[in-house]
Amino acid sequence: MRLRNNPQADDILGRHESYIQNPKECRGKWFHIFKNENPIYIEIGMGKGDFIINNALKYPHINFIGIEKYPTVQVKAIRKIDKMDTCPKNLRLMSIDALELLDVFDENEIDGLYLNFSDPWPKERHAKRRLTSQTFLPIYRTILKDDCSLVFKTDNRNLFEFSIMTFNQEKMKFHDICLDLHHSLGYEDNIMTEYERKFSPHGPIYLIECQF
Amino acid sequence: MRLRNNPQADDILGRHESYIQNPKECRGKWFHIFKNENPIYIEIGMGKGDFIINNALKYPHINFIGIEKYPTVQVKAIRKIDKMDTCPKNLRLMSIDALELLDVFDENEIDGLYLNFSDPWPKERHAKRRLTSQTFLPIYRTILKDDCSLVFKTDNRNLFEFSIMTFNQEKMKFHDICLDLHHSLGYEDNIMTEYERKFSPHGPIYLIECQF
Repeated sequence: MRLRNNPQADDILGRHESYIQNPKECRGKWFHIFKNENPIYIEIGMGKGDFIINNALKYPHINFIGIEKYPTVQVKAIRKIDKMDTCPKNLRLMSIDALELLDVFDENEIDGLYLNFSDPWPKERHAKRRLTSQTFLPIYRTILKDDCSLVFKTDNRNLFEFSIMTFNQEKMKFHDICLDLHHSLGYEDNIMTEYERKFSPHGPIYLIECQF
Repeated sequence: MRLRNNPQADDILGRHESYIQNPKECRGKWFHIFKNENPIYIEIGMGKGDFIINNALKYPHINFIGIEKYPTVQVKAIRKIDKMDTCPKNLRLMSIDALELLDVFDENEIDGLYLNFSDPWPKERHAKRRLTSQTFLPIYRTILKDDCSLVFKTDNRNLFEFSIMTFNQEKMKFHDICLDLHHSLGYEDNIMTEYERKFSPHGPIYLIECQF
């Protein structure tokens, strides 16, 4: 997602109670930040935040961390939180590149990982930048606990096909696959992203849940 | 596919030069039948035969065996062959149940296996009858040579989702996956089945190529 750069984004984020300014200092100590040992789920590429905010509200006994590369985008989420009565205590946000995840999370520190409508990087020469490429899978494998899931949703057919292939090459175990999320039974509790709400009428939403 | 039973089907098939009456006698000796050692590809559930007949015509240096449970359906294929100038020498048909494959083919006797628009058996209690269920995968594993492919095509989303899961559980290696075959580049040489020609305008055709 691209937005016009907001030069005040870093300031706005830095002042917010949900925002982690120095996430690398939290590595291995996230339970201190949340002041509990509840499971920690992260969303990589949280965009404007609907998914992670609504998860935090719906599941108060899970800690959620929203990760986004672009501070300008993340400010949109901050504004949504500010309109709420209180900031959910089980929600934190941070601006990092997914390549920095190992600096921010210890081995097996994470209990769930969401990738929603990630940038498809359609050109073949950019394949390594896709968040489901083999650039990133070993990183996710390291920080995710055994038997914990990666859940990936997209409307981009080519990206989904590519991802099934990389997950298979990585010998991941598939727990669920759905090729038309919005027209399938059993997904009534699906929490939508802003993008998903806008684009799902135009074609199928694909989902896979899998483990390393 | 269900058709009104043709009581003469067995007679019509039995008299045809492409039809194998006692396929169990061919086990381990298929190269005698074809009088060469070319690769052998089989289609399980050949229906009315367009796919296997057109493959046989297009690839004369591959031997094709069309397998169908229902003789009445297979007669439709025989009639197509009879309208041609000559019966392709690299094509044989037989009526067996897929559960009998091990009686008909030796270990590693097969170089390619096609499943096209297989019966979805939509009820959960019939899941074991699906040709991509774990009832059948160990059979295919036995008769397919190493590094040779199973190629599965369907328009049935639920069956495709189920199949991806069973292939993953069987630890198969995915070589290709396409979630909309008729709107993707690189599949211009796709040979269609009768069913595919009729139903592809109504929704996506899914394809996966994978190996044991």
